Amino acid sequence: MPRYALLVEYDGQPFSGWQRQTSHPSVQGAIEAALAKLEEGPHTIAAAGRTDAGVHATGQVAHCDLTKDWDPFRLSEALNHHLRPAPVAILRAARVADDWHARFSAHERRYTFRLLSRRAPLAFERGQFWRVGHPLDADLMRAGAAHLIGLHDFTTFRSSICQAKSPVKTLDEVTITEIPRHDGTEFRFFLRARSFLHNQVRSIVGTLERVGAGAWQPDDVAAALAARDRAACGPVCPPEGLYLSGVEYPNSPFP
Amino acid sequence: MPRYALLVEYDGQPFSGWQRQTSHPSVQGAIEAALAKLEEGPHTIAAAGRTDAGVHATGQVAHCDLTKDWDPFRLSEALNHHLRPAPVAILRAARVADDWHARFSAHERRYTFRLLSRRAPLAFERGQFWRVGHPLDADLMRAGAAHLIGLHDFTTFRSSICQAKSPVKTLDEVTITEIPRHDGTEFRFFLRARSFLHNQVRSIVGTLERVGAGAWQPDDVAAALAARDRAACGPVCPPEGLYLSGVEYPNSPFP
Repeated sequence: MPRYALLVEYDGQPFSGWQRQTSHPSVQGAIEAALAKLEEGPHTIAAAGRTDAGVHATGQVAHCDLTKDWDPFRLSEALNHHLRPAPVAILRAARVADDWHARFSAHERRYTFRLLSRRAPLAFERGQFWRVGHPLDADLMRAGAAHLIGLHDFTTFRSSICQAKSPVKTLDEVTITEIPRHDGTEFRFFLRARSFLHNQVRSIVGTLERVGAGAWQPDDVAAALAARDRAACGPVCPPEGLYLSGVEYPNSPFP
Repeated sequence: MPRYALLVEYDGQPFSGWQRQTSHPSVQGAIEAALAKLEEGPHTIAAAGRTDAGVHATGQVAHCDLTKDWDPFRLSEALNHHLRPAPVAILRAARVADDWHARFSAHERRYTFRLLSRRAPLAFERGQFWRVGHPLDADLMRAGAAHLIGLHDFTTFRSSICQAKSPVKTLDEVTITEIPRHDGTEFRFFLRARSFLHNQVRSIVGTLERVGAGAWQPDDVAAALAARDRAACGPVCPPEGLYLSGVEYPNSPFP
């Protein structure tokens, strides 16, 4: 059975998350249903990151096995046709080796978090940002984030239901970009690691927001990390600003 | 009665346009209803541009008259509260002179049109772009647009139901910016004039898209303009990429 990698974009709002569930709409379920329109199922696809309810993706990667030898472009077009009207789009498809795995072959995940400081409620792109009504100081947030870079025990910054065997992870990058807008300022967080713990990005951004607002000092982030205690974390921020924006592989399937 | 200028943002999708109508939701109607929650109505507000159905605004300007002496910030907060859940936001409010008029005092309108070249259907920001599935050449579109700058009879580029007394207008600027994206290319058109004819921006962008696709030559735009004939226009593009993005006044009410 030829294997195909899929570069997938989705708006997380209507979904209970990536993972297929019996009674709730999921991104995995939507794509598997579209695949079943092409070749009789059941289909089971795997993804690089199993995003939570309400979390978006602009660069999720999944793989599927099909019996027919599909032209990759035709495959993406046919899937997009059958995915309508779900807010899921196949941006690219590519033939990959039979042992290539969207999750296990990946060596880096990239998340983007979009935090918008603006007083008025959103008229556009609702559910696409975490909006706060107060100003934020990017430099303070950067100083706080610096404490988290590198190899650490991230117990403070993972969900209590996280199933990872170890809380020790290497966080390779947290870059915070300040983007002026006509209606306020967007703070775009870019995080990069081999893998992330459950709720790690939202725990980090929620904590850094407190730093940016002046409620926490940057050094409080170091103390929270050192505590290795979930209770030391700042508030976990909502999912609507979070995007799985990229997955890296030793040899990209999408050259 | 003190007069207030309002800087207004809205998603045009659910509305029949700016202008109040008896049986269809309108942006004007939504704001007037919110005003009636603050002070008994009826209220009649005026706007710089009466946008069509499906057309958005990030910088519409309107004015209203109230009896109370409102603090402008409190006024915008109260209106935003009562506007919910409509996708309309008051970004700023300001006290203005009694003879200041959102429409008649304006000396420039600015429109932005967002055209996205991307193969896959949109998962995000549906209704916020005009998406085409083919590539476009920005330089060809710029060469075509150059023919339209200045004082011209724009009969070719206005709706047959346009009520303006004269088709002669001065188009001050058409700038086309090419913005690379992970999923394609956005072509952002920025147009600036004292005032525009009905459907003028959509007629111009629809025609320039044909140039960008290679179906028209840039010089064909000059010929279409010279024809002064509505039938010579290219296809009028859909409203979903169009934003009233700014209105200029001799003295800005929003310093």
